[in-house]
Amino acid sequence: MPTYRAPVKDMTFLLHDVLQIDRYSNLPGFAEATPDTVTAILDEAAKFCEGVLQPLNQSGDAEGCTRHDDGSVTTPTGFKAAYDRYVELGFGGLTQDPDYGGQGLPHVLGFAFEEMMISANMAFAMYPGLTAGAIACLSATGSDEQKRAYVPKMVEGTWTGTMNLTEPHCGTDLGMIRTKAEPQDDGSYKISGQKIYISAGEHDLSENIVHLVLAKLPDAPEGTRGISLFVVPKFILDDAGEPGERNAVSCGSIEHKMGIHGNATCVLNYDGAKGWLVGEPHKGLKAMFIMMNAARLGVGLQGIALSEVAYQNAADYARDRIQGRSLSGAKDPDAKADPIIVHPDVRRMLMDARAFNEGARAVALWGGLLVDLAEKAQSEEERQEADDLISLLTPVIKGVFTDRGFECATQAQQVFGGAGYIREYGMEQFVRDARIAMIYEGTNGVQALDLVGRKLAKDNGRAVRAYFKLVEDFCADHKDDAEMAEFTAPLQAALGDLQACTMWLMQNAMKAPDNAGAASTPYMHLMGLVVMGHMWAKMAKVALTRLDEGSGDMAFHENKLITARYFAKHMLPETGGLRAKVEAGADPVMALAADAF
Amino acid sequence: MPTYRAPVKDMTFLLHDVLQIDRYSNLPGFAEATPDTVTAILDEAAKFCEGVLQPLNQSGDAEGCTRHDDGSVTTPTGFKAAYDRYVELGFGGLTQDPDYGGQGLPHVLGFAFEEMMISANMAFAMYPGLTAGAIACLSATGSDEQKRAYVPKMVEGTWTGTMNLTEPHCGTDLGMIRTKAEPQDDGSYKISGQKIYISAGEHDLSENIVHLVLAKLPDAPEGTRGISLFVVPKFILDDAGEPGERNAVSCGSIEHKMGIHGNATCVLNYDGAKGWLVGEPHKGLKAMFIMMNAARLGVGLQGIALSEVAYQNAADYARDRIQGRSLSGAKDPDAKADPIIVHPDVRRMLMDARAFNEGARAVALWGGLLVDLAEKAQSEEERQEADDLISLLTPVIKGVFTDRGFECATQAQQVFGGAGYIREYGMEQFVRDARIAMIYEGTNGVQALDLVGRKLAKDNGRAVRAYFKLVEDFCADHKDDAEMAEFTAPLQAALGDLQACTMWLMQNAMKAPDNAGAASTPYMHLMGLVVMGHMWAKMAKVALTRLDEGSGDMAFHENKLITARYFAKHMLPETGGLRAKVEAGADPVMALAADAF
Repeated sequence: MPTYRAPVKDMTFLLHDVLQIDRYSNLPGFAEATPDTVTAILDEAAKFCEGVLQPLNQSGDAEGCTRHDDGSVTTPTGFKAAYDRYVELGFGGLTQDPDYGGQGLPHVLGFAFEEMMISANMAFAMYPGLTAGAIACLSATGSDEQKRAYVPKMVEGTWTGTMNLTEPHCGTDLGMIRTKAEPQDDGSYKISGQKIYISAGEHDLSENIVHLVLAKLPDAPEGTRGISLFVVPKFILDDAGEPGERNAVSCGSIEHKMGIHGNATCVLNYDGAKGWLVGEPHKGLKAMFIMMNAARLGVGLQGIALSEVAYQNAADYARDRIQGRSLSGAKDPDAKADPIIVHPDVRRMLMDARAFNEGARAVALWGGLLVDLAEKAQSEEERQEADDLISLLTPVIKGVFTDRGFECATQAQQVFGGAGYIREYGMEQFVRDARIAMIYEGTNGVQALDLVGRKLAKDNGRAVRAYFKLVEDFCADHKDDAEMAEFTAPLQAALGDLQACTMWLMQNAMKAPDNAGAASTPYMHLMGLVVMGHMWAKMAKVALTRLDEGSGDMAFHENKLITARYFAKHMLPETGGLRAKVEAGADPVMALAADAF
Repeated sequence: MPTYRAPVKDMTFLLHDVLQIDRYSNLPGFAEATPDTVTAILDEAAKFCEGVLQPLNQSGDAEGCTRHDDGSVTTPTGFKAAYDRYVELGFGGLTQDPDYGGQGLPHVLGFAFEEMMISANMAFAMYPGLTAGAIACLSATGSDEQKRAYVPKMVEGTWTGTMNLTEPHCGTDLGMIRTKAEPQDDGSYKISGQKIYISAGEHDLSENIVHLVLAKLPDAPEGTRGISLFVVPKFILDDAGEPGERNAVSCGSIEHKMGIHGNATCVLNYDGAKGWLVGEPHKGLKAMFIMMNAARLGVGLQGIALSEVAYQNAADYARDRIQGRSLSGAKDPDAKADPIIVHPDVRRMLMDARAFNEGARAVALWGGLLVDLAEKAQSEEERQEADDLISLLTPVIKGVFTDRGFECATQAQQVFGGAGYIREYGMEQFVRDARIAMIYEGTNGVQALDLVGRKLAKDNGRAVRAYFKLVEDFCADHKDDAEMAEFTAPLQAALGDLQACTMWLMQNAMKAPDNAGAASTPYMHLMGLVVMGHMWAKMAKVALTRLDEGSGDMAFHENKLITARYFAKHMLPETGGLRAKVEAGADPVMALAADAF
């Protein structure tokens, strides 16, 4: 049976020592995020995730969700009680607006909590995860009445949310959706159509489900400019604002998926369901993107979280399983064999995951902080800068961290040998669960295209130039620091590759857009390495400083340096190969005739 | 529902044009392998695989195998009839010794057939696959009496075989096995112990199952030098040589696995079962390695085969699914959207798989030819050279092709977007099935260690030196060939990286063996790229020649060149990053204390 220990120490190191969130104590919510409060919350969260959610992960996968003949859906045994506990503990409101009953704590702390929850039970974590996205969307674009009607209950957690985009014939290309919304005399709309792949679409956890649905008004223009957003509650609210009449939205079936069996992925049929327009007509896609951007960061966390829990179990197994002898002579001569952690190739797999987990976590929490700053920083300039950076980083966090998270989970499974392939050991579930994160909320190919096709060029490249300056300044600041050279030198080389590729794109993508498409995924991964390399160098600097001061947990900081070195020597050198792929251009990729494949 | 079209044209191109097997018509079995016969066999095989095996692949996965209370095991619906047909068509004897009823055709042809069978239905293909391994082992080390008793029925296919190595506490480290063999007065042995992960261990396909079992004699020395091999039939042969009394070997349970559900992976309990020693006492591991080496090549084929079938389905989907518009302007302006194959990033995923499939297939078939030559070439020198090369390449074929095959299957799944995650589309099964190939028959880490720790150094590096000369000679032969420069130049650069790493290993592995372990997997993948790059250059040369001559299928040869170019520009440049990992040495990998993970 797999286990999980929340990486609270690493998270507090990042929050306080690396990101230094106490610098922002003048901003709303940050004043409350003192080291003591943060530790208390993370400890309580860890207790809940380790003690309540994780024990339901494997059983939830085995049992899955059940759709009954009446269209109702039951989540796996124990999920309802765990969800009640989640609501009781108030976790749903952690980072939500105090005006709606939330605690208003920084998103950066919420990101740490979300990672834990996913590691412990990804299928479960998706129920509140989607609710949070729906809250963000309603808060940003809903009317005051809609906000008052729905948001407090969702913050509380007694109601949950969903996002309804995909239809059988379209997912990425939402301009093609067919779901219709017909205006009614009472100001509501009659929603008709079929939505598929709706996570948490129907279940028994909450008293109501608030569906946010993309549909087309009768006068809608063609394509993505004709999409509107509607709120469609499972139970229509009565005059008291409580769930009343059952709405005409029903679960037609549950999908049979590779993983995340504990989450009900539904086909939802809207048979003239009552809905209300959210925001302006035909501006639905923009509204949905608010939800989607938050969701994409959450999906990036899934990559890290599954890699982390898979890594932990692989490390435990590698310490326990005895098999063969160390190449450099028996390490435990009295035993029949040495534990497999003595083998360099086993360590290589563990170190790959460890260097990714800690590097990606640093990036993700920095991303959480940027979300906070984009919203709350004091000057418009600071808010804009944070918004630029998080917009640039979102596809990298989603695309790179889910690709690598899946790879690391697969390597962790590999550490188990044959046992990795057997269900009871739980490792293959991590791989199956991690796989979806590369697909949903925009496939990773869509993320890569968002990066090179939209984010790089936006505002004449303001974001990417700001980002390059950040890394360059960091390297310049430490250029005389001999201890830092082993981290900054490979970072600078990697940055050089990234800058060369950015230049190549500027020169070649305009004249032939397929060059951008062909380069997009290698470019995104190249940026992912630089982004992690930058955070690794920052972490190394903190660790070196602490060791010089002789303060804090010496072993923790020594281990940071060891892992930083591994990242510099084993992962950053991948940038050269990625650069070659970018600079190869579109021709090798596009030359084959479509019917020759 | 997924489909499959056997790549007969590519296989005949490789057999006749690239490997030129007609050069060996003076060797046993090759004379019969005329182009017409080869085509006839491959066509018949394709018909069987496409028409009989493939339609059972998805249903077999969904249904799985069933163990009944009496310990008997039923394979999925349709498997028995398909197996009967397989036996009827004589496929089991294709490459087997005519003395035992086989057709004696070259292994290189058998490899092509095996790839097809795996693409169509990997779980099914494992039943005859393990039988072939058991035949190889018994043929090489069994007594004449044992051969006569078991091999003809196994060649026929009416009996199947298994290999029994792993026990709950040991797999890789077979020196630790506990299964006992006690000598009996009648010359037989009483076998007691438990074996796990026994593929095809119990089923309803054949009249008898011939288990080859590793066990220890009472006087066995410690470790791998004390392992003996036994043949333990499910039904003990009666005086007429027919299956008689039920032996005391039984299936305790079937494993619940991530994939290959159609194959019964059994826990086998030996409760004083009657067995007979195969070969000499305490020399069992050596005997089993005969089986294992054949099996490792077969597992390498699994990597290619699953990548191929996943690729084919992804290409079909990419041509059919319309979504979004080409970056360079609408390709099908009258439709709502373009097919997704217009997107460079979709093509990147398809081209990755295509370049791998065709390159790896070329290597694997060359490997099959080397197996033939090692056995049948006229001079001892030629046999030795072939044996050297296939020994060197076996871990590369197993380790690299299953790693990359899994990656390509995962990318093919990605092409499907959300549908890739849904069972009914069949793509996630390819990923789950492909995953085991990285684990069994020695994990890929064990393959890498076999390569750097054993194969490189053997006979003072004779094999690797011979291999380098082969590639160098090829490059030298074409150094004035301007059309070949785009293939030979990157190949030479990649070879340079491989040679530098080989040198690095020679200098650093002896003084600190952990350097070999830490470098092993990147080194193996580096060699895999060179080996595929070499075959791609050879294929490109054939294609260029055919195009110059204006003979054959022009489009086929043009497409070969396009794919060769993709390999040269997108895949070969990965060698630089791998070299950096090799040359980073053991320190970054080994520095962390075991309890700090």
